[in-house]
Amino acid sequence: MNKWVYIFSKEQTDGEAKMLDLLGGKGANLAEMSKLGLPVPPGFTITTDVCNQFYKNDKKFPEDLYDQVSRAINQIEELVKNQFGSNQNPLLVSVRSGARSSMPGMLDTVLNLGLNDSTVVGLAKKSGDDRFAFDSYRRFIQMYSDVVLNIEHHYFEDILEDYKLENDYILDTDLMGNDWKNIVDLYKKEVSNITGNEFPQDVNEQLWGSISAVFLSWQNNRAVTYRRLNDIPDHWGTAVNIQAMVFGNLDDNSATGVAFTRNPSNGDRRFYGEFLVNAQGEDVVAGIRTPQNITEEARLDANSDDISLEKLMPKIYENLIDLANKLESHYLDMQDIEFTIQQGKLWILQTRSGKRTSHAAIKIAVDMHEEGYITKQVAISRINPASLDQLLHPTIDQETEIEIIAKGLPASPGAASGKIVFSADDAEKASNEGEKVILTRIETSPEDIHGMHAAQGILTTRGGMTSHAAVVARGMGRPCISGAGSLRIDYDSGSVFVNDKVYKAGDIITIDGTSGNIISGNVKMKEPDLSGDFQKVMKWADQIRKLKIRANAETKLDATVAKNFGAEGIGLCRTEHMFFEEGRINSVREMILAKDEEARRFALLKLLPMQKNDFVDLFKVMGDLPVTIRLLDPPLHEFLPHAEEDFAEVAGSLNIKVDDLKQRVSELIESNPMLGHRGCRLGITYPEIPEMQARAIFEASVQMKQEFNQIVTPEIMVPLITSKSELQIIKDVIDLVAIEISKKSGIKLNYTVGTMIELPRAALRSAEIAEIADFFSFGTNDLTQTTFGISRDDASKFLQEYVDKNILEKDPFVSIDVEGVGELIEISATRGRSINRKIKLGICGEHGGDPNSIDFCASKNLDYVSCSPYRVPIARLAAAQAEIKKK
Amino acid sequence: MNKWVYIFSKEQTDGEAKMLDLLGGKGANLAEMSKLGLPVPPGFTITTDVCNQFYKNDKKFPEDLYDQVSRAINQIEELVKNQFGSNQNPLLVSVRSGARSSMPGMLDTVLNLGLNDSTVVGLAKKSGDDRFAFDSYRRFIQMYSDVVLNIEHHYFEDILEDYKLENDYILDTDLMGNDWKNIVDLYKKEVSNITGNEFPQDVNEQLWGSISAVFLSWQNNRAVTYRRLNDIPDHWGTAVNIQAMVFGNLDDNSATGVAFTRNPSNGDRRFYGEFLVNAQGEDVVAGIRTPQNITEEARLDANSDDISLEKLMPKIYENLIDLANKLESHYLDMQDIEFTIQQGKLWILQTRSGKRTSHAAIKIAVDMHEEGYITKQVAISRINPASLDQLLHPTIDQETEIEIIAKGLPASPGAASGKIVFSADDAEKASNEGEKVILTRIETSPEDIHGMHAAQGILTTRGGMTSHAAVVARGMGRPCISGAGSLRIDYDSGSVFVNDKVYKAGDIITIDGTSGNIISGNVKMKEPDLSGDFQKVMKWADQIRKLKIRANAETKLDATVAKNFGAEGIGLCRTEHMFFEEGRINSVREMILAKDEEARRFALLKLLPMQKNDFVDLFKVMGDLPVTIRLLDPPLHEFLPHAEEDFAEVAGSLNIKVDDLKQRVSELIESNPMLGHRGCRLGITYPEIPEMQARAIFEASVQMKQEFNQIVTPEIMVPLITSKSELQIIKDVIDLVAIEISKKSGIKLNYTVGTMIELPRAALRSAEIAEIADFFSFGTNDLTQTTFGISRDDASKFLQEYVDKNILEKDPFVSIDVEGVGELIEISATRGRSINRKIKLGICGEHGGDPNSIDFCASKNLDYVSCSPYRVPIARLAAAQAEIKKK
Repeated sequence: MNKWVYIFSKEQTDGEAKMLDLLGGKGANLAEMSKLGLPVPPGFTITTDVCNQFYKNDKKFPEDLYDQVSRAINQIEELVKNQFGSNQNPLLVSVRSGARSSMPGMLDTVLNLGLNDSTVVGLAKKSGDDRFAFDSYRRFIQMYSDVVLNIEHHYFEDILEDYKLENDYILDTDLMGNDWKNIVDLYKKEVSNITGNEFPQDVNEQLWGSISAVFLSWQNNRAVTYRRLNDIPDHWGTAVNIQAMVFGNLDDNSATGVAFTRNPSNGDRRFYGEFLVNAQGEDVVAGIRTPQNITEEARLDANSDDISLEKLMPKIYENLIDLANKLESHYLDMQDIEFTIQQGKLWILQTRSGKRTSHAAIKIAVDMHEEGYITKQVAISRINPASLDQLLHPTIDQETEIEIIAKGLPASPGAASGKIVFSADDAEKASNEGEKVILTRIETSPEDIHGMHAAQGILTTRGGMTSHAAVVARGMGRPCISGAGSLRIDYDSGSVFVNDKVYKAGDIITIDGTSGNIISGNVKMKEPDLSGDFQKVMKWADQIRKLKIRANAETKLDATVAKNFGAEGIGLCRTEHMFFEEGRINSVREMILAKDEEARRFALLKLLPMQKNDFVDLFKVMGDLPVTIRLLDPPLHEFLPHAEEDFAEVAGSLNIKVDDLKQRVSELIESNPMLGHRGCRLGITYPEIPEMQARAIFEASVQMKQEFNQIVTPEIMVPLITSKSELQIIKDVIDLVAIEISKKSGIKLNYTVGTMIELPRAALRSAEIAEIADFFSFGTNDLTQTTFGISRDDASKFLQEYVDKNILEKDPFVSIDVEGVGELIEISATRGRSINRKIKLGICGEHGGDPNSIDFCASKNLDYVSCSPYRVPIARLAAAQAEIKKK
Repeated sequence: MNKWVYIFSKEQTDGEAKMLDLLGGKGANLAEMSKLGLPVPPGFTITTDVCNQFYKNDKKFPEDLYDQVSRAINQIEELVKNQFGSNQNPLLVSVRSGARSSMPGMLDTVLNLGLNDSTVVGLAKKSGDDRFAFDSYRRFIQMYSDVVLNIEHHYFEDILEDYKLENDYILDTDLMGNDWKNIVDLYKKEVSNITGNEFPQDVNEQLWGSISAVFLSWQNNRAVTYRRLNDIPDHWGTAVNIQAMVFGNLDDNSATGVAFTRNPSNGDRRFYGEFLVNAQGEDVVAGIRTPQNITEEARLDANSDDISLEKLMPKIYENLIDLANKLESHYLDMQDIEFTIQQGKLWILQTRSGKRTSHAAIKIAVDMHEEGYITKQVAISRINPASLDQLLHPTIDQETEIEIIAKGLPASPGAASGKIVFSADDAEKASNEGEKVILTRIETSPEDIHGMHAAQGILTTRGGMTSHAAVVARGMGRPCISGAGSLRIDYDSGSVFVNDKVYKAGDIITIDGTSGNIISGNVKMKEPDLSGDFQKVMKWADQIRKLKIRANAETKLDATVAKNFGAEGIGLCRTEHMFFEEGRINSVREMILAKDEEARRFALLKLLPMQKNDFVDLFKVMGDLPVTIRLLDPPLHEFLPHAEEDFAEVAGSLNIKVDDLKQRVSELIESNPMLGHRGCRLGITYPEIPEMQARAIFEASVQMKQEFNQIVTPEIMVPLITSKSELQIIKDVIDLVAIEISKKSGIKLNYTVGTMIELPRAALRSAEIAEIADFFSFGTNDLTQTTFGISRDDASKFLQEYVDKNILEKDPFVSIDVEGVGELIEISATRGRSINRKIKLGICGEHGGDPNSIDFCASKNLDYVSCSPYRVPIARLAAAQAEIKKK
């Protein structure tokens, strides 16, 4: 018999924290807390295996599940001395999702399940509170209808609004027991109108409807999107947790809240949280009411007039602090705890490792190591490398005069400027057009994720630090201000009103997610200060990692940024970028338009001193660190104009006829430029080009030695080879120039010659190529394009669909396709090393800054990755994590 | 000590025929003939190893070569009782190339070496013929100057012409000994003028200069081109043969000739050959004088007035026939023999397997098998599959009225029409522009090869059946008429004069290389008759081969041709070809321009019956043979207009706005269409397209069963997959349609679903793909493009250079790149079979008709190749040869 159901309770608990994969995060921790003796309402977990079975078997449950659930319900009935469906002591339960990795708000939840026309009477009698009982019933009807019957909220909200208008009520609290009873009747009528069926009165029907709905929600659009953005595989599935209800909304001696054992925003070791009196748990997270602070300290900091839990219920507060400490030292990580106080009794409903900003992640990791809780390795593993991104970006320059419009909660740090947009769709649209936007909403919901992702920053007028907007923005590394209550948004007119000013869609604002300031217009930003804990973590990472980290850089500025971020060399200097600069593009074009070798050499001679200076600049920054210089790669037509309107101007500046220019462009134009006359193929047709580039490199080397007594070590990289012969031909050109310049200058030149491995054939022929190559650099962009036969420029038409339909787990241009491209890299590395034991191997595609890809590179024992300068710290950390994982 | 030199002579012979690789064809056969006791002038061979050493060591010879050559010269001196450099009995030698595979006229030769101002006197005295001696000397100076000193022929020809003018001479034979002596002086002066040095008088300097020159000629342009066209590897090298001279130009009792043991044009078992009285050997091959027939029978056939050798020198003729028979039964193949008659004594200078037309090759192979000389396997191996091409092409329809302009020698069979061009360069240029041309020349030389290759046929006014033009054209399978003496070509005015007519460049003529007829204009052609020996050979090939041969075909016509040529199924039916037909392209465009799925389905519904009929047509031709149908492959924009001038018309016929059409085109246009939204990617985005195609296939299958009681077995092929998931999605669409149609019709559908393996990732992921694929068809065109990262459309800019520079041995789009693409195919085959033992494997790229590629496929035990209909017989033969080779 398969065990599908795991009980948790004071008396019997089948699961534990380690059973995360099977029970999901919530279920495993409920079990663990029950074992630890914490006050957890009893319940049981239906495993993630059931979820997978459900989808495998055409959305049918395993036969023996029904019996196991029924027996588990019986056990809970006995424990809480209530009965499911009883009109005397009705057992009410919550039905919640619980995936292996937290997916806040993505999956469905049903509360107060077990209420019907008869049990509600029992609840009213038992609680002595008609109002509470019927309010709970109408909440249940609304939630169940939404989640199980697919009836949208607004039908019920309209009924409630109408009822309030008819009865001159303003607030929900104006409604008495009888009113809610009437509402319940109206709600039930609406359900019957829409579905053609009565609202289900059978509590078991309610239960199974809800269980199905939660499992079904695993595949709803927002959950699928969230998983994609967060790299959560589909096959993990969700568990379902069914638990006896406790009520934070019974009276003013009841409350509900969320707490963190440390501050999730800055990482301070201070208990931190928010709560609402007389409310149900979802009210805090949903951000509908702005909650109160738990600690007095936080209340004072926030300058709030609302009483803290510390003052309101000091005993409960003590108890909560105590349990929180217990949980943190048990789990050895900062905990995010959900609790409910029912008529003076504290219940813990959930604990989990708390989401945190990357700033907080670093501080907490460093502190907990220094407090003796965790090793350096564990500390390093706790920080999501990708999230470092938000630390590395500019913040607002404090010296600048800024016009503060308003203030909100500093929900996710970092600053961002952009045009105001009011919907997720607008944000996405504008972002696709290259605009920077601030998504400005009353509140956000899971439907808004794509817009949050597309925006530079998020601003909401409602909700606290744990609201949807805040949690998701922190996860994404987007700056966010939440609960900016002084702003009033009018979606219809596309305006934000604040004091006596109006901002319209398209106006530029800046948000500072670290201070909560909302600022008018663009603001001068400052480079981030990466000292203290950040440097500690980087140092630990450097001690652990084996993979070297280099940067892709062509300019002095980029090289400097990279070096400051800890780059150990330049892994890719794309010389063509240098060709586009003003003052030389004309010489480049002259070279391309040359009618014969002589004319080409003449034009190249003009480029030589400029190209030489490029390299001197780079060498000056990088000192004796290696600098990999890639010879000219793109097809020549990329340097010529293609648009009708540009021909005249370019022809004029070159002093040639427009028709001659057009003629040459049409000669050079290609059907598939990606697979055209480029890379080493150019150098083979026009050896004078690599000859000039080699000359520039070596003359720069000589100058460095003569002027600065600096010995530099350029690594000259030949792109797009498919065979040893091609590399040999270009290498011969390079070596000849080296001999000549070495002789002339009397200076010994230190250089190596290697190649990109960026075509499948090069990967396969690596053994013979390695005979003459000093290094291989895997050009994973092109290698991905050719291995998949997908042009990156054209992929947008179908690649997203591929990811959505799960044909590809991830965009292979973002994260290395281990199964295909990865195998070619592995083949190449193995064959290359079999011939040339000392060959240096690295990657220099955009994958070089992607943690998953770095993990792959480390697992194949490559020597280095090269990434964009801003991703160097990410790569350092990811490389360390990869090393830890290997052990 | 390395043995670099191999003697051949009556007394001592070091080599034999088996040492082909080391001694080259000429050298090995000279040795073999010497051993057999044939009258071969003594000499020695410098091995091909020396050639490779020479190129490896910066064009220096091995030190110990000098001594070995000097001792070999001494041995010859003793044998012929002459002395090298003697002014009494001077030894004269020839220095000739001799590669492993014959390269007629490509490499250099020096004759009469050993003549100088003093030895010429000895020769004159000994021969008693001043005229002969000084004519030989001036020939030597001219040849040596050309080959060794790089002084072009025309300098010497001008001197001779001037001399003749001044002295009122018309023919060379008008010049007497003294005249030649004067000419010699003028020649030597010219050499000294041009080079600044005296013409070398030291015979050893002459010898080593000539040896070097022959080795150097291995890398001259025409030799490199020839090797490329004939797949001869560079590293084979050439040997050099140094042999005592015999003279066919001593007197009228001397002659020189070439003979074949069977007719090289039609394969008849008749001794056949040509000779010239009082001439040097090169005169016959060069085609400067039109030679006489050897046999009386041939003379009568040719209606020639020139006396045959049979009549002129009956004893010598008997002797020659005798030796020829001896050679054929020794070598067990038709022999091409060069001989010289010096003052009544017959000398054999060379024997080798004779080049022959494919018609002759088949006849000789079949005859020699039936005569009991060789096995079927050997017979099959004797026929070059590629050469069958010339048999498979049309000949002139005998029923047609034709206007015969003139007649020449039927030098290479088959007929061809085209515009007259007068130079190889013009031929190549016109051919590149898609024109069909007849290369029309007085005579051809090795410099013309590229033009001969580019032309449909070759016509010369001079030279015999063994002239350069004839030999090369036969080898290439190009129709050729040689020696059409009634035509007069004037290159300057670009005209051919014949009788009272003038034909200009660009005028269309037809040549019939089988009859020798030159015909005005285009002529109706007839399909070849492939019965008799051809069918015998094909039957033998079918008995031997294991690889199945299919054809690529979409139309009833192509399928019929293919089936008649013995195709065992259709390996590739490209459904997009069907989409371009008039009457349906508009529905295709409607489908592409559809705004939503509904509109798309509406347009597809119009295509369905047409597509269904396409398949019914194919099924009717192919009966129960398998038909592989590939689903729509190209990107949709291929079906839309791209040129400004076409938009209005297309928009009009679709009844839409030009701007809407342009808009859609610009949406669909791709940077790299090869790597774009095509293949299965289309089917994943628009599943209604494969759905329609599957429906058409299955409805056609049902019709075939219902109307003709014919059970067909379509194999549905999904293009461009990279993963199992893609195939699964399309396969699901297909299977669903099959279930539906099977249910509706009550007819069981026999079909399989497989995939193209045409992207590196698909090859790598073959194990999992094979879980659900019934077959793999290697799309070697795309696989080559992506493995190399080379777009076939753009490759012309550099690919030829790659082949010329030896970066690639062959154009990988013509012959499978075994090292790269081949490894991917092997990986895929191994992985696919490891999971699915029964999976059917084939290739359907254009490589399917290339013998080398077929050999590769057979060696990897693929199940079939699919090629164009006209190449099916070639493939059948090549597959048999591959099987023979395997054993």
